[in-house]
Amino acid sequence: MKNCNPIRGTYDYLPSEARLRESLRKLILDSYMSNGYNLIETPILENLEFLDSSEGGDNLRLMFKTVKRGDRLDLTKPNLTEADIVEEGLRYDLTVPLARMYSNNREKLPTPFKSIQIGSAFRAERPQRGRNRQFTQCDIDVFGDTSINAELDLLKTSLDTLSSLGFENLTLRINDRRILNLLVLSSGFGDEDISTVCVTLDKIDKISITGVMMELIEKGFDTEKINNLVDAINDVVKNGIDMACKYGVEKSVVDNVKYLIENLNKLTSDRFQIIFDISIVRGQGYYTGTVYEIYTEGFSGAIAGGGRYDKMVEKLTGNSVPAVGCSIGFEPVAMLLRERKVSLSSKKNLILIYDQDDDILKVYELKEKLKQNYNVSLYARPKNMKNFYEKIVAVADAVTSFKDYNNNVEIKMLNKG
Amino acid sequence: MKNCNPIRGTYDYLPSEARLRESLRKLILDSYMSNGYNLIETPILENLEFLDSSEGGDNLRLMFKTVKRGDRLDLTKPNLTEADIVEEGLRYDLTVPLARMYSNNREKLPTPFKSIQIGSAFRAERPQRGRNRQFTQCDIDVFGDTSINAELDLLKTSLDTLSSLGFENLTLRINDRRILNLLVLSSGFGDEDISTVCVTLDKIDKISITGVMMELIEKGFDTEKINNLVDAINDVVKNGIDMACKYGVEKSVVDNVKYLIENLNKLTSDRFQIIFDISIVRGQGYYTGTVYEIYTEGFSGAIAGGGRYDKMVEKLTGNSVPAVGCSIGFEPVAMLLRERKVSLSSKKNLILIYDQDDDILKVYELKEKLKQNYNVSLYARPKNMKNFYEKIVAVADAVTSFKDYNNNVEIKMLNKG
Repeated sequence: MKNCNPIRGTYDYLPSEARLRESLRKLILDSYMSNGYNLIETPILENLEFLDSSEGGDNLRLMFKTVKRGDRLDLTKPNLTEADIVEEGLRYDLTVPLARMYSNNREKLPTPFKSIQIGSAFRAERPQRGRNRQFTQCDIDVFGDTSINAELDLLKTSLDTLSSLGFENLTLRINDRRILNLLVLSSGFGDEDISTVCVTLDKIDKISITGVMMELIEKGFDTEKINNLVDAINDVVKNGIDMACKYGVEKSVVDNVKYLIENLNKLTSDRFQIIFDISIVRGQGYYTGTVYEIYTEGFSGAIAGGGRYDKMVEKLTGNSVPAVGCSIGFEPVAMLLRERKVSLSSKKNLILIYDQDDDILKVYELKEKLKQNYNVSLYARPKNMKNFYEKIVAVADAVTSFKDYNNNVEIKMLNKG
Repeated sequence: MKNCNPIRGTYDYLPSEARLRESLRKLILDSYMSNGYNLIETPILENLEFLDSSEGGDNLRLMFKTVKRGDRLDLTKPNLTEADIVEEGLRYDLTVPLARMYSNNREKLPTPFKSIQIGSAFRAERPQRGRNRQFTQCDIDVFGDTSINAELDLLKTSLDTLSSLGFENLTLRINDRRILNLLVLSSGFGDEDISTVCVTLDKIDKISITGVMMELIEKGFDTEKINNLVDAINDVVKNGIDMACKYGVEKSVVDNVKYLIENLNKLTSDRFQIIFDISIVRGQGYYTGTVYEIYTEGFSGAIAGGGRYDKMVEKLTGNSVPAVGCSIGFEPVAMLLRERKVSLSSKKNLILIYDQDDDILKVYELKEKLKQNYNVSLYARPKNMKNFYEKIVAVADAVTSFKDYNNNVEIKMLNKG
């Protein structure tokens, strides 16, 4: 037999898992839609020049690119470079296509525009647990709204959605890039240092404040600046977000974070932990304001996150549009639901066995009746009933099986397991 | 502004269209599932060697291929060929990945295995109406079942599904490759001619029997053979499928087609036209038995089709597995529903406008109440209400709009249009 594995970092999903993923997709989409976000769909292939012009950082290096087709592929050209042979790129996220699509249809779309995208993105990362090369993203975004109520609605929707999936013990950690930036600047670092300092700060969770200090020393920064920064961070952590104003942060920025925390607590009846967390950075360079992540007990990574990116659309498309979004991590959430053996489907699957001498029309008559309450799968009685039954029950999650069909509809039910 | 168009042959779907596509996907999937087929999911990227070994015909030429990444891409190699620089392929259909996935998981899966796949496939075809470079396929297949009841179930399910989408006046045209082959062989053609003669026969609908004769003459075939073939076809068309036996077709093959027609007519209460049609060929070379297509009034192409391909899985994977499938053409169906302005969604979208001085907690209280019956989208009162309203109603298909919010919940409803 030939090698029939899927390619590295991608997966085949057998029925139980495919059903779980489908139900998850549906529940997230329904929740997003019931909160009035508008579903859109963009292609998987994008113009490569356009993708390359995005602030994708490492993702650009990890991009899948298609090779030119037909006569356009000239391999005899001297000093051939990659740019000579590639044509399109597979999107590495859904935000860049959204910005393109919004700019292209701006005159048709209302302001603000609240969008949903659920789709596949691709990154050629070194395969590891939870790092698929093809993965599903579930994004909601608001374009054209500078108000903090955009964040409020995105976060309320995301918390409600995760809660409806059975995730309780959620912790929402909120920060603002402008707080982070000013703490860094007021400690003596320059504008040009912000990005690399933030990359290190992003690791506080994992390497603690001592680890952060060591890494910044390794990066060659002044001990004095580093000490200032650590003092400032400790000040804000211990004495509260209001302290941020001491370091030049505008009161309105602090008030925004407090507004979010206060109102989200009320809107979710204090069911979740909602806190200011100076260590929330978010990797991407394009964030300009609020940044946030949602965590659940028993899993170290964030299961949702996002923030405000008011300059990104302009840089990418030439259209100045404020934007803010929140994304639920479909793959980690699916993995957690699978590990916790959560079942999201409603209708039960039923196997209806008929014998070769049964009247096929009567068989279908029974099937149609049963379809009112079940998904009904027809099978001629297999030679090896035991083997068939074990496999079909495992694959179809068939909790009930009709072992016999006859016109008197005498039915034996078997519960799974 | 930069060029923000999607790449050639691909499309952005704005909310009304994306919602229609989503509802269509859901209805097809629900119908497939209620008939007991099992959802699976396979990756969009496949091993290129594997794809190249498939009987994809023209589709192989139209394949999108990804370029090697990092050190594996060596552009300095002398006499560079495409094979040196490519790595994966984007799947051009869902049948090839299904065969791979089935072979890889055969010991876990029941026999027969009834599968559903709904997903994107890619072909770099010259863009034209209904020929997208990225398109959705909706396939059901039965692996490991040689019985004609597999076809019966696939076709009953497909007809019911299309009917549930509002398509009436459906015509199911059934043929069997073995009938076609023997008519060709018994007319004096050789085994090696079957494929090219069938390609021409496939066009009877468009170019009539005279056109078929002319094309076969152009292809250099004997007039005598051509006349024999035309006589045989006319015989079967005029005097019925039983005549096929005169040309060496086994009675069991003819009986199969008759069994399908008779039982499908009964199972669908004679609501559709279900006929034997010698002109149904289906392009792909891999079909070995029954082939069929479903047509609807007012559209010239098939909106569903498929057939039996008992040898394909073995050629592809080394595993001998009989297989048969039927696919609903998602893109033509979506196009027809759009043109006919069919609405498939159930829950109405509602726009809730609040004023800046409203208590945001009360606004959300109202929103939660309304969510029981509507998808509810919150917007702060826009400066230009008329412009906003026109766009949001168009984009969100919002049939009702709450123009005002206040604590007494005095609501004005506006019907769309």
